[in-house]
Amino acid sequence: MSFDLEAIENPAFLKDLSLEEMNELAAEIRQFLLTNIAKTGGHLSSNLGVVELTIALHYVFDFSHDRLLFDVGHQSYTHKILTGRAKDFSTLRKFHGLSGFQKRKESPYDCFEAGHSSTSLSAALGMAVARDLKKENYEIVPLIGDGALLSGMALEALNNIGYEKKKMIIIFNDNDMSISHNVGAISKSFSNLRTSNEYNDLKDDVKDFLKTKKHGKSIISAISGFKDMIKKQVVDSGIFKEFNLEYYGPIDGHNIKDLIRVMEVAKENDEPSVIHVVTKKGKGYWLAENDQIGIWHGVGPFDIKSGKALVETPPHYKAYSKVVADMVEKIMYQRDDVVTITPAMIAGAKLDSIFAHFPDRSFDCGIAEEHAVTFAAGLALNGMHPFISLYSSFLQRAYDQINHDVCRMDLAVVIGIDRAGLVGDDGETHHGIFDIGILRPLPNLIIAQGKDAEETEKLLYTAFNQAHPFAIRYPRGNVYYKGNNEDIAEIAIGTWDYLLKNNSSKSVILTYGNDVNELLKLINESENPYDLINCRFIKPLDHQMLDELALSGKEIYVYEESILSGGLGSAIGEYYALNNQKVNLHICAIPDLYPQQGSSRQIREELGIDPLTFLKTVKV
Amino acid sequence: MSFDLEAIENPAFLKDLSLEEMNELAAEIRQFLLTNIAKTGGHLSSNLGVVELTIALHYVFDFSHDRLLFDVGHQSYTHKILTGRAKDFSTLRKFHGLSGFQKRKESPYDCFEAGHSSTSLSAALGMAVARDLKKENYEIVPLIGDGALLSGMALEALNNIGYEKKKMIIIFNDNDMSISHNVGAISKSFSNLRTSNEYNDLKDDVKDFLKTKKHGKSIISAISGFKDMIKKQVVDSGIFKEFNLEYYGPIDGHNIKDLIRVMEVAKENDEPSVIHVVTKKGKGYWLAENDQIGIWHGVGPFDIKSGKALVETPPHYKAYSKVVADMVEKIMYQRDDVVTITPAMIAGAKLDSIFAHFPDRSFDCGIAEEHAVTFAAGLALNGMHPFISLYSSFLQRAYDQINHDVCRMDLAVVIGIDRAGLVGDDGETHHGIFDIGILRPLPNLIIAQGKDAEETEKLLYTAFNQAHPFAIRYPRGNVYYKGNNEDIAEIAIGTWDYLLKNNSSKSVILTYGNDVNELLKLINESENPYDLINCRFIKPLDHQMLDELALSGKEIYVYEESILSGGLGSAIGEYYALNNQKVNLHICAIPDLYPQQGSSRQIREELGIDPLTFLKTVKV
Repeated sequence: MSFDLEAIENPAFLKDLSLEEMNELAAEIRQFLLTNIAKTGGHLSSNLGVVELTIALHYVFDFSHDRLLFDVGHQSYTHKILTGRAKDFSTLRKFHGLSGFQKRKESPYDCFEAGHSSTSLSAALGMAVARDLKKENYEIVPLIGDGALLSGMALEALNNIGYEKKKMIIIFNDNDMSISHNVGAISKSFSNLRTSNEYNDLKDDVKDFLKTKKHGKSIISAISGFKDMIKKQVVDSGIFKEFNLEYYGPIDGHNIKDLIRVMEVAKENDEPSVIHVVTKKGKGYWLAENDQIGIWHGVGPFDIKSGKALVETPPHYKAYSKVVADMVEKIMYQRDDVVTITPAMIAGAKLDSIFAHFPDRSFDCGIAEEHAVTFAAGLALNGMHPFISLYSSFLQRAYDQINHDVCRMDLAVVIGIDRAGLVGDDGETHHGIFDIGILRPLPNLIIAQGKDAEETEKLLYTAFNQAHPFAIRYPRGNVYYKGNNEDIAEIAIGTWDYLLKNNSSKSVILTYGNDVNELLKLINESENPYDLINCRFIKPLDHQMLDELALSGKEIYVYEESILSGGLGSAIGEYYALNNQKVNLHICAIPDLYPQQGSSRQIREELGIDPLTFLKTVKV
Repeated sequence: MSFDLEAIENPAFLKDLSLEEMNELAAEIRQFLLTNIAKTGGHLSSNLGVVELTIALHYVFDFSHDRLLFDVGHQSYTHKILTGRAKDFSTLRKFHGLSGFQKRKESPYDCFEAGHSSTSLSAALGMAVARDLKKENYEIVPLIGDGALLSGMALEALNNIGYEKKKMIIIFNDNDMSISHNVGAISKSFSNLRTSNEYNDLKDDVKDFLKTKKHGKSIISAISGFKDMIKKQVVDSGIFKEFNLEYYGPIDGHNIKDLIRVMEVAKENDEPSVIHVVTKKGKGYWLAENDQIGIWHGVGPFDIKSGKALVETPPHYKAYSKVVADMVEKIMYQRDDVVTITPAMIAGAKLDSIFAHFPDRSFDCGIAEEHAVTFAAGLALNGMHPFISLYSSFLQRAYDQINHDVCRMDLAVVIGIDRAGLVGDDGETHHGIFDIGILRPLPNLIIAQGKDAEETEKLLYTAFNQAHPFAIRYPRGNVYYKGNNEDIAEIAIGTWDYLLKNNSSKSVILTYGNDVNELLKLINESENPYDLINCRFIKPLDHQMLDELALSGKEIYVYEESILSGGLGSAIGEYYALNNQKVNLHICAIPDLYPQQGSSRQIREELGIDPLTFLKTVKV
């Protein structure tokens, strides 16, 4: 048989399917995912891994009132298909299109939203407490991967869940990968669990079972027998025992029959329980199945047969992350004191080469931003000069450590802020628009952003010559790269570059990053005499230049791809207010909202803050 | 014999003491601590608990090159005494005095600094990696309590330590208390460890042992036998086994002989190990020993005999935390949907009464700010209206959760920001001066601070009537309280209060919190015609009033006890810059540095930003 996936309105139809039909459905969904993601791009491996698991979940539970919380949410594509959203997959992760994560506004089946890792267990406990206080009755099912489970806040949540003992069914999706291979001591413990006993081989005839299910009552006795069987098979429940949680597993995550049986058992248990499900990331697409470093985690459009990306990096262009990684690697060849740290982002941050060439001086801490930053502080306290790469939006997790441990002790740590600015497809949870606001208040910290690859290299070189914390921002995407720059010099801290200066101009525009060249081009085309300054240091400001501007009497326009509050414009306002200087300051920045998914251009046009619209407001 | 504690210059003298003498030293240090803390105030219970432990550490290790990292650092008083700082104890936690935590500038024996919990393990791993890369040779010894160990970042660190396998000796100081009693599932697991086997009864004659120690070589064989003995006695190593760590324990933390022996054994081990030490918090002072809720954790000056505080709350005054807690409790009586959450701060945040009267609707999550905030988000998602109390400086730990989980989903969570502003004795790690800068950029969030108890109550009442996240700030210390306010009304969101208005005045002063009445008093005394506005909402701003001010042409002065960057002044600058309004804006705030310990008055006077100095700069 064949399913019309786009005609699915809700998952109710699953209840009438036989096991064989569910397996057929899984195969068709897998094909649909592969075909569609190959066109639109998206999270591939994790979604291919949970097709059967998601079908089983929707078979056993009714998530129109039960609660399903996908941790992160990037693995919710099958859930979207089963809840009536297959028809929207051509818009996946596009401007005003289907989100790549759970979104409450998309469907009543989405009760929760994330994007950052490891939040589902805490939220699930909150939901469970609320349910019990209100004496309501429904199941709460967070689904969390092994990488996410090892992040601090998920461990905090487990500790609290095992203490509060509110009922929930935690689906622990163990594929020994978060984005790339997991690291850490407990991963080994999971691995022991995984191999300590064979997957539970559930012999019962599934057809009989499914029939029984419809009869209702007789299931209970069937289940209690089954429960004992599982218990006997489980010889070790690893860390879950320490957390005082009921443990079932490991279960083959691609065996719908077994999944349904164990979920039915867990439903009967009144305590919080963990179902340990072993899945294969990328299941069904050989390239993704064999991926060890996570390149099939999130992908752009690709050719299914060859696996080749359909959108290639243009000639003379290079990923910004790669420009930074290559420069750090170059410095690591020259200096023994430089080490590289990443919280589970080797592939995304293009650190593969560093990890290959400097295995002793590169560290993947797992999804553990907090620990990673203070680990860097410890290295710096003992004389090393660490580079830690953090996506802007994930850096938010380590704000206190950057403040309390790195900046307060004034330690020489270089923080690479990847994905600074609007990031596109991942949308509101991933935009790197808050880091300036939270970092700028930190004493001792230097914050910089280059206007192009060459300046970024120089700033990075400068960063490693400072005895202070230094944050260097760079955006997602590619940048023009003319080749190895052999002549790298330091840039004096806190100096800006007055790129266009005209005695007759009434206005000066201040910006940083990619927008410097973007505005330069537009100004040159416009033939209006605007001044333009590249504010490559966001902290400290170029006080001399600011004093000069105040004296000039020019209108000062700050243009930035950061949220207005706390940004560069704000910093400049503070400087003048502190020094009692009167100026005419204007700011064009991201307003007080969470921008949706879409390209930087689309988002800025919609918000009326694209460079062209901005320029029209500047006095000539 | 008697020791002259104030004459101690470094811990070298310990090597020549007999066990008896060390026990005598412990008794004298304990007496010294009690006597001094009773005069100055400080962290009492935790320091009384680790006297023997600290002596043993300094006996076994040489921390002039070995590294001792106190987690948090509030339990480092005996360490300070043994490293030559007893003579400074009269200045403990006072302005320009001895810090209550480890501080690198105080002593070469302080290699690390903290104040916030659970950072020591991450830093220790960084130090260990650096040591091994540089092929240096010394021991690294983090000391961490059971409350701190269960915080997410410490668990992340354990996971990484068990994986990297760099040598360090983790002293796990287990007293079943963090500040008040621990909660959480693993606490039970620790408790099982604690009771599963008797403390190791180390039979060897300690005198012989100490003699042997000086002979050097023969110790090795003695130790290996001892090691086996311990191993045999240990039947369960609990969660540490999951983290792949060598485990010794539990050891009686008040038995110097046993402590020395087990540390010597751990030194011989090349892998990271955990020594599980059981101590009694408050040991030697009966009131502190019997303290179940943590009131003897941090204390002001007190009478040793009666335990009574020497500085009492003046009549008609009440702790600000208590004003808030009482109001929340009042609302909880009226509304079933309100629940209270704290990360291990029941006593500090004065939540005792709420927890006593609403056991089902109050939750202590342990030192787990990240989880606690997203737990609140989950409650809100299911229709509850949680109140979460967070000290301003600890809120930094949960920045991403407030952003990504609460504000992005626009959830009705009330965040009580306790200890907002300068906090006094605890110093640079505890000042609540960053929260405005990090919270103001968050869409959907309302931020408010009352000028007095009555306005704080009204704002709190207002907060629970909003369908949005609402952060309400209140400072450390007491506030005038005229009694129960029966007539609580809402305050319209984003409205300020124009307290003093004079048509002839040239300047208007904008401030919030305690400084409103402080400035009001000074202005009234000065007889200068300054205008004064109470900016009780920090977000949203009162746009109407700001527009009015712009039209008035008055000089606008913002005065605030927050770091300059990102503060209210900054917000006002942004507003005018965004709207192209020209004003004369001046800001007086905390400059770009970490303020030291001391009263708000002392710190502000030293920085030249006290109200009186500020007023002199205002144009009349």
